[in-house]
Amino acid sequence: MTEPLRVALAGLGTVGAGVVRLIDANGELIARRAGRPIEVVAVSARDRSKDRGIDLDRFDWVDDPAELARHPGADAVVELVGGADGPALALARAALGAGKSFVTANKAMVAHHGLELARAAESGGVALKYEAAVAGGIPVIKGLREGAAANVIDRVYGILNGTCNFVLTKMEAEGRDFAEILAEAQRLGYAEADPSTDIDGVDAAHKLSILASLAFGAQPAFADVVVTGIRNVIAADIAEAAALGYRVRLLGMADADGKGLFQRVQPMLVPLDHPLAHVLHSTNAVVAEGNFVGRLFFQGAGAGDGPTASAVVADLIDIARGEFGPPYAMPVEALAALPPADSGERRGRDYLRFTVADKVGVLAEIAAAMRDAGVSIESLMQRGAMADGSVLVAIVTHEGPERCVAQALEKLRGSPSLKSEPMWMPILSD
Amino acid sequence: MTEPLRVALAGLGTVGAGVVRLIDANGELIARRAGRPIEVVAVSARDRSKDRGIDLDRFDWVDDPAELARHPGADAVVELVGGADGPALALARAALGAGKSFVTANKAMVAHHGLELARAAESGGVALKYEAAVAGGIPVIKGLREGAAANVIDRVYGILNGTCNFVLTKMEAEGRDFAEILAEAQRLGYAEADPSTDIDGVDAAHKLSILASLAFGAQPAFADVVVTGIRNVIAADIAEAAALGYRVRLLGMADADGKGLFQRVQPMLVPLDHPLAHVLHSTNAVVAEGNFVGRLFFQGAGAGDGPTASAVVADLIDIARGEFGPPYAMPVEALAALPPADSGERRGRDYLRFTVADKVGVLAEIAAAMRDAGVSIESLMQRGAMADGSVLVAIVTHEGPERCVAQALEKLRGSPSLKSEPMWMPILSD
Repeated sequence: MTEPLRVALAGLGTVGAGVVRLIDANGELIARRAGRPIEVVAVSARDRSKDRGIDLDRFDWVDDPAELARHPGADAVVELVGGADGPALALARAALGAGKSFVTANKAMVAHHGLELARAAESGGVALKYEAAVAGGIPVIKGLREGAAANVIDRVYGILNGTCNFVLTKMEAEGRDFAEILAEAQRLGYAEADPSTDIDGVDAAHKLSILASLAFGAQPAFADVVVTGIRNVIAADIAEAAALGYRVRLLGMADADGKGLFQRVQPMLVPLDHPLAHVLHSTNAVVAEGNFVGRLFFQGAGAGDGPTASAVVADLIDIARGEFGPPYAMPVEALAALPPADSGERRGRDYLRFTVADKVGVLAEIAAAMRDAGVSIESLMQRGAMADGSVLVAIVTHEGPERCVAQALEKLRGSPSLKSEPMWMPILSD
Repeated sequence: MTEPLRVALAGLGTVGAGVVRLIDANGELIARRAGRPIEVVAVSARDRSKDRGIDLDRFDWVDDPAELARHPGADAVVELVGGADGPALALARAALGAGKSFVTANKAMVAHHGLELARAAESGGVALKYEAAVAGGIPVIKGLREGAAANVIDRVYGILNGTCNFVLTKMEAEGRDFAEILAEAQRLGYAEADPSTDIDGVDAAHKLSILASLAFGAQPAFADVVVTGIRNVIAADIAEAAALGYRVRLLGMADADGKGLFQRVQPMLVPLDHPLAHVLHSTNAVVAEGNFVGRLFFQGAGAGDGPTASAVVADLIDIARGEFGPPYAMPVEALAALPPADSGERRGRDYLRFTVADKVGVLAEIAAAMRDAGVSIESLMQRGAMADGSVLVAIVTHEGPERCVAQALEKLRGSPSLKSEPMWMPILSD
């Protein structure tokens, strides 16, 4: 057995403690698989006295994370501190600058600073690994970087936020509205006290931009992700979708042609015969469609200490084996700088829902806006009065360019007939 | 750009031609991802004159596969000839013996001779890669070898044969019996003229034994896989299962405790809330359950020239990158030799179906056999006469040891009341 891979670990929250527990529990098997043991030698966290249920005395405790990053006994540094900037980024720069391999679960930091960090890793000849940053325990970074590497990827998309999927699944199962379910999820600890990073799609957007870089060999462009969360999905949307043979899911989706990179996070209607329709509760799933492999589908736990620790240690095993290469599958200088795609020409079918006043002429107004914008209606359902006396009009369009739908919604903007913002959800195409 | 990875390719059937087409189509992208081009330099096949829709003049044509294996211009050899022994095995031995990396899609050869070939690869310091041998384009070998490497795997199982899943899906959709659907699948080219390797579970068993080795760090033990195919599944079984909330799937399943390795291919009842229940047609899927990551689920095309070529070239990209290690994730000498597990003590719920004569006392005879063997019945359905006048009795048991079910079936063996072999399908547990 050769020398162990020695690890310095920053951050001892649930995931950090999970990494220690995993290596304690599975260390012998990991050593057989990795060809050498993986050993935590030093740790850093805010509170030394907190009881984490693990014995920390055997590790070198370092108060200053930047000092941890340069720890002379460590070959690799694991960052589980969190935050796009601040201490996490300082740690990453220091570790890579000191010529140490670096593993992180920090999606925000990789989305914002991945390119800079990848350059540093490449110039130092060390690893930058971030499997745990996207879809928790699911090896989807590896799936794109290596498993599907022979393919031109047509599109990559998936359920990237467990909190949103938990809320949408529960809304469907119980027929209740968003606010109620969110409050319950917060009570149960499935949603944060400030849920906006999850609910408004930002977390999914971080992950999507990482997937898009890998899939399309493009420079990360988090700022170009167009994001809509799930706050405006109502129980009636989910019921209408179900009646039509769909389920509502918050999807991150990206594709690229020669001209631009499309990246969007948005609630969409998923047909029941698509595997994403059967992803329930807080489970995550990613689909990659390649020009030779067809549709690849990866599903599993997107969060939690065990799955996240599993992904972090898988990265460490790759490093211990010496099986790693450029962080973005190809050298940073080979990544293309793609402008954001113009979505107006995208063709698809759409679900539109209007909550309107119960009075003469409203339906005609909506229908006229559709006609004037060139939107062809496949089906229209008007449901009787809701609790507050308003009426629900749900439309499914024929396939057409997105530009026309946007124009129709623009025409209706500010109409006194509408009692809330219209809901627009594209229907996932095959 | 460094030197290309030069490849000698044996076998130019649909998959071999697919590999050539893939490298032609995606070669530039592959070179960016792999850090160097991948280039076919020499080929070998039975019939030089056959039109395969690809230009072969640019390759060195070698008549003798063994000579191809030692081709001085090749760094790696790809085997797409097929067959557990014969020319494929001779080629593998020759290539690895000549110090060349070796890539194969040949599940039968890997199942039978994987250990010998892995030893040869390890002693030569070259790669033996076989992603395409299991579940076609799905990167499940990589998923187990690397993605889930930090975990003790509790069990690995899945839908490993597309022909069987196609037949079972179609039987369910159309309510028709096995023989009719198989004949139709043969007419359409979805099943071979001699379908027994698929239908009787041998192909799935090859794949399962490969997965089991990787998952449990065990020496491959194909001969110990207990195999039952789908010939005895009737439309009524599928209908009963559906009424109970299950779908019938041919599953390969393996687990290991300290004492033994359980490996079985058998039709099973899959609950509708399990993702395997939603794997339709010829799609494949593999589940790996780890002690930290939980349930990982991989789905995609299990066969076909495009997906298989995608997996073959993914292996070549790993070789071009230098990102490969021991073929079984750990060195051959670290693999445990596990005896076959005793299945008698396994606890589970089971589906049993008897086709019986329509006469007094038959139900009592079955019920007595269950009671005497200690099998506790959760539900029993007797359906009226089938077309031939026989009666169908379907039983779901409470959870209990498999030994008891085997004893009950043994008691009933040869009873004149039974008009065919009883059907036994375990119910997949969570």
